Amino acid sequence: MRILYVVPGPMSRTGTGADELRRRGAILRGWADEGTSVDIRDVERGPASIESAWEEYLAIPATTEAMLQAEREGYDACILGCFGDPGADACRELLTRTLVVGPGEAACHVAAMLGERFGIVTVTHSVVNPLRHLVARLGLAGRLAGIAVVEKPVLALAQDPEETRSRAAAAGRRLIELEGADTLVLGCMSMAFMELSPPLEAELGVPVVNPARAALKLAEALVGMAVRHSKRAYPTPPKLATPARCR
Amino acid sequence: MRILYVVPGPMSRTGTGADELRRRGAILRGWADEGTSVDIRDVERGPASIESAWEEYLAIPATTEAMLQAEREGYDACILGCFGDPGADACRELLTRTLVVGPGEAACHVAAMLGERFGIVTVTHSVVNPLRHLVARLGLAGRLAGIAVVEKPVLALAQDPEETRSRAAAAGRRLIELEGADTLVLGCMSMAFMELSPPLEAELGVPVVNPARAALKLAEALVGMAVRHSKRAYPTPPKLATPARCR
Amino acid sequence: MRILYVVPGPMSRTGTGADELRRRGAILRGWADEGTSVDIRDVERGPASIESAWEEYLAIPATTEAMLQAEREGYDACILGCFGDPGADACRELLTRTLVVGPGEAACHVAAMLGERFGIVTVTHSVVNPLRHLVARLGLAGRLAGIAVVEKPVLALAQDPEETRSRAAAAGRRLIELEGADTLVLGCMSMAFMELSPPLEAELGVPVVNPARAALKLAEALVGMAVRHSKRAYPTPPKLATPARCR
Amino acid sequence: MRILYVVPGPMSRTGTGADELRRRGAILRGWADEGTSVDIRDVERGPASIESAWEEYLAIPATTEAMLQAEREGYDACILGCFGDPGADACRELLTRTLVVGPGEAACHVAAMLGERFGIVTVTHSVVNPLRHLVARLGLAGRLAGIAVVEKPVLALAQDPEETRSRAAAAGRRLIELEGADTLVLGCMSMAFMELSPPLEAELGVPVVNPARAALKLAEALVGMAVRHSKRAYPTPPKLATPARCR
Amino acid sequence: MRILYVVPGPMSRTGTGADELRRRGAILRGWADEGTSVDIRDVERGPASIESAWEEYLAIPATTEAMLQAEREGYDACILGCFGDPGADACRELLTRTLVVGPGEAACHVAAMLGERFGIVTVTHSVVNPLRHLVARLGLAGRLAGIAVVEKPVLALAQDPEETRSRAAAAGRRLIELEGADTLVLGCMSMAFMELSPPLEAELGVPVVNPARAALKLAEALVGMAVRHSKRAYPTPPKLATPARCR
Amino acid sequence: MRILYVVPGPMSRTGTGADELRRRGAILRGWADEGTSVDIRDVERGPASIESAWEEYLAIPATTEAMLQAEREGYDACILGCFGDPGADACRELLTRTLVVGPGEAACHVAAMLGERFGIVTVTHSVVNPLRHLVARLGLAGRLAGIAVVEKPVLALAQDPEETRSRAAAAGRRLIELEGADTLVLGCMSMAFMELSPPLEAELGVPVVNPARAALKLAEALVGMAVRHSKRAYPTPPKLATPARCR
Repeated sequence: MRILYVVPGPMSRTGTGADELRRRGAILRGWADEGTSVDIRDVERGPASIESAWEEYLAIPATTEAMLQAEREGYDACILGCFGDPGADACRELLTRTLVVGPGEAACHVAAMLGERFGIVTVTHSVVNPLRHLVARLGLAGRLAGIAVVEKPVLALAQDPEETRSRAAAAGRRLIELEGADTLVLGCMSMAFMELSPPLEAELGVPVVNPARAALKLAEALVGMAVRHSKRAYPTPPKLATPARCR
Repeated sequence: MRILYVVPGPMSRTGTGADELRRRGAILRGWADEGTSVDIRDVERGPASIESAWEEYLAIPATTEAMLQAEREGYDACILGCFGDPGADACRELLTRTLVVGPGEAACHVAAMLGERFGIVTVTHSVVNPLRHLVARLGLAGRLAGIAVVEKPVLALAQDPEETRSRAAAAGRRLIELEGADTLVLGCMSMAFMELSPPLEAELGVPVVNPARAALKLAEALVGMAVRHSKRAYPTPPKLATPARCR
Repeated sequence: MRILYVVPGPMSRTGTGADELRRRGAILRGWADEGTSVDIRDVERGPASIESAWEEYLAIPATTEAMLQAEREGYDACILGCFGDPGADACRELLTRTLVVGPGEAACHVAAMLGERFGIVTVTHSVVNPLRHLVARLGLAGRLAGIAVVEKPVLALAQDPEETRSRAAAAGRRLIELEGADTLVLGCMSMAFMELSPPLEAELGVPVVNPARAALKLAEALVGMAVRHSKRAYPTPPKLATPARCR
Repeated sequence: MRILYVVPGPMSRTGTGADELRRRGAILRGWADEGTSVDIRDVERGPASIESAWEEYLAIPATTEAMLQAEREGYDACILGCFGDPGADACRELLTRTLVVGPGEAACHVAAMLGERFGIVTVTHSVVNPLRHLVARLGLAGRLAGIAVVEKPVLALAQDPEETRSRAAAAGRRLIELEGADTLVLGCMSMAFMELSPPLEAELGVPVVNPARAALKLAEALVGMAVRHSKRAYPTPPKLATPARCR
Repeated sequence: MRILYVVPGPMSRTGTGADELRRRGAILRGWADEGTSVDIRDVERGPASIESAWEEYLAIPATTEAMLQAEREGYDACILGCFGDPGADACRELLTRTLVVGPGEAACHVAAMLGERFGIVTVTHSVVNPLRHLVARLGLAGRLAGIAVVEKPVLALAQDPEETRSRAAAAGRRLIELEGADTLVLGCMSMAFMELSPPLEAELGVPVVNPARAALKLAEALVGMAVRHSKRAYPTPPKLATPARCR
Repeated sequence: MRILYVVPGPMSRTGTGADELRRRGAILRGWADEGTSVDIRDVERGPASIESAWEEYLAIPATTEAMLQAEREGYDACILGCFGDPGADACRELLTRTLVVGPGEAACHVAAMLGERFGIVTVTHSVVNPLRHLVARLGLAGRLAGIAVVEKPVLALAQDPEETRSRAAAAGRRLIELEGADTLVLGCMSMAFMELSPPLEAELGVPVVNPARAALKLAEALVGMAVRHSKRAYPTPPKLATPARCR
């Protein structure tokens, strides 16, 4: 089985970014089943990180193109590497054979299978409303205890990992004690690739779902079920006009 | 008061399109209050029409730029000229003084003030799920009776206006008789500018909300209330990275 | 366009009341468009103020008669001048040409267009449940963050305006900080005509919707859309029995 | 235990009405426990029958006065004799010792205890939306399968009882077969006192809740539990202004 | 009328248990109407008390048998003597003439008739999620303010009644002040038979529904309405296989 | 990784049953990853098949014991082999290291990831309400289009496989055309092991989720994520009383 992880932004266009892209690919391969081949790829255009609805939308045009290319290359599934799942519906409209898995969707469904009410620990207040809408759209609003933030921008998370972990623990504790969460979800892919779940689980005593790992394992599971997205739910756009042709 | 209607696609890049753009501007000015100046403008890039989630997203990058430009030019409000309100949240994140009114949002709230349960008559099945999500996001899912389609692509609506009207009447009748709608909304801006509301109201005996007119009059009303969008709800993106700078 | 603001109680039957009625009329005219003529009128019977479900109901019989009279006089729209919108459904059942706008309904829909979650600042605990039911009935319960009170009776609000403003600011701050409101609504017409919105917006940093102004501007907007209420939603009562004839 | 059934309209002011009032009282006494004394009383002012939101409101002022009088007379509970429970909340605000039971509320809760999804068979389309709001307000919207009508005015129901029964059976069958109802509720007190439940149950094979009997038996049950309404839920109106004093 | 209260566990199999069973029977008879005969019975197998979903399920097999036996003996109604109503749906599938009343269901519907938002005071955190699911299943989640616990196991409640009462008062106060409850429900039958309602009502100023008494009075009321459960809602299992025959 | 599939009934106690158990085990192994070892086991007591809430409950006591035994034997995950997931919450209360996967839960979450609204094709009307409650409990009621039945008892499904397939296709078509389903779920394990998904997908053009395969692949995925159930959501029962000790 071949899975492609698409970073919906130009991560490798900076020096450290190419290293980080490779590092994330290696982590994904470490989680994959033996029979799974995982590739990782970023896109040429898009925001350096996603901390707003605006940046989610900016990431979509190049990402949908990357997904179309992945289907042409025969990937079984693509992971849309941002917790907000930007444009997941559009990707499913465009593709017919390749599965598209959103880490937000995957992690929230997994959390709903592990507990009764999950909380999301994410980066900044600016993504709280977009994530709230994501969960509502998944139909899981009734399972959401709340969303709490570490209030650090995405690109600063890895600069002081210990401080990030400490803030994430405090945010998680607030969700557990004040909002009734019994399960947590890391609500950012940069947090996911810092592998914060094990220390947070040890400290907080609840499952902490890693959205990158959840997306990968659910992608494998869905491919293993031999299912595809419903084209009745995500119909192919009536015309095939590209932005260039529209003019 | 100065209001800008932004067509989220390159309508004028074709010959007939520039005429249509002018025609729509004239209709809007005919609806406007005396003290309101209405301009209309399309954007350079984007889909020729919007009949899918994918095309909604493609329309957003250029549209947000047009909205930012409108704020710099001092407009009091912008109308985001697609019934799906693509990127309305992103526009509100980016702007601070200028109101952004989505025709879908405006029309659904108006319909909720005129009746108990509204139905939406729109173009093709491919937009039904995106519109369902729009209404849910507005918090008005409990007021929605259903969505019915004329099953004609946007760009074909005006080719045979009488047939379009006839199909819209049939769709509306289904919503009234089978789904319990007591109020209708035209769910497409091209239908809105065909001015189908009067004949449909006469034929069906229920209010038929025109989203273009609803958006214009609500834009005037909101400006007249001296209110702005909540920046707590739509915070400015933490960084000001543009797609170009991200690379 | 001719709009009538109906006070659902005998405000002018006291000396200060007639002055206050004139003062409110002047404020409304200051908000109105150039082409709008605004009249204000109270009713002969009904409670001096409305702070309970009971008083809401007491206000309705005379108010519905005033609305019927307004339709006979050819008004385009009536504003039902109590935030609880008492009897708005009954008025719409009785009228066929004249729009009836409730300030609660208008303000809540406007708030839903300005932010994600609104809070209502109102007078006393005794109206909290009635207002909660109003918002639920509007279909906007999912957008309501909460309701907070200044705990002053309606007729005492204007006696110490500064204290009222200060209590309203404290109530608004609780809604923002504890309940997650990003937009506020003044939940009482006497607060609306004290023009508390500007100072509260300055102090709290969120939009504060004035229900009187919202009702007036939405009334103008709806008239400007050439729409009427749905008679399928609000059917004319099967018989035309008046209370007198029933005996 | 003493229970008063209040007809929220001037039923006895006509000749046949006084007989009908006595007849209903006798039926109620036939259903009552041995230790229960049941009185019946109408009010001086109000509509002859209730088939709209407007008539619901018209019935409330005299009805609340009758309830206050009942509390002064020491009744343990009052039944608000209209299926729409008009002004039940206001009555509970005004009373402190005497329970107020609405037949709509009682019947819907009983139906929810007997099956999974109930349907309401009522008189005319003009009460469907008011009843839908009643059920939503009870918090039981998720248990409601639908509402169907016999399309006969209240005052005509008893003129041809067999035709009324036949239309009610047809309406009930539609609710069962098309809407998934497994339990029915008679949604009108005049239907309730025609004792349609036994023949409809025999014909349709599902429970058919009689709201008059449900209200009586729940009134007895609540009195037997020694409970009262929550004054935190239904607080006494802050002032005791009567309509007369307001002027 | 003959009502059987079934304790879904082997309460009498211990010395004190038989006394307690008799004591509970006497309390029930004290609450019953004159015409009601109340019996009490436990079952041979099942948990000593129910503080988890697991124990709820363990109680069901013997309890359903006891209910079937009660129908054969001609009881008009059975009370399923655990607040969690374990297996109420199964009992209704099996029986056709005898009503089955769950104390949780009865108490929550009664609370919904007394106030706007009820809170449940129960024993341990381990039953909070099961009770939350119970309320959701009743369709009353929108009326639930919250659930609070005394954090004492069921079998320890009666050892220090004053401390239990004090903890229950504290739990109830939290529900009122922090969660907005205006009505309380005792969420455990052992608490119900300690007759905590009167002191808690006196201390907290809100109704405190006793689920044992609510179940008894609702059982009487339902029998008095001559209604039965809907077999469309609770169909008889297609086969009549018993566990023994399944092998 | 070691996974145990537990049949919650005594399937092998009949001759054909042991064969069928082996056949199902072989199918599961055919779906499993290379590194997964799958065992299958039935339980000694319980119903021959599950077509009612009653039979769901009868299956739980022996099933929870089998799950406890599986944890002692070191299984990574158990599949609770009935679509109704009977007692899944109890199993999670009892276990601490071994995951418990319900096929209903797994299939519904998978369906929610493949489309917008799923329909369930199941056996008989007697399980429709239990399944509706299951979906509601999963928090996915908003994603459910409807439930349709083949109206054949479980034990008859395999007697005429072609007729079963044909009835399932008809039920699925009703869900798609009348209820708006875009994705289907087989709502019975005996249907799952008839491998109806491929022919139904070919005939109906939508994904048809096999709950057995979904449960297996999700069990593998969850084990592969190194997550466990939340003990805050599913706490260990306060006492360890077994039914035997209760007496």
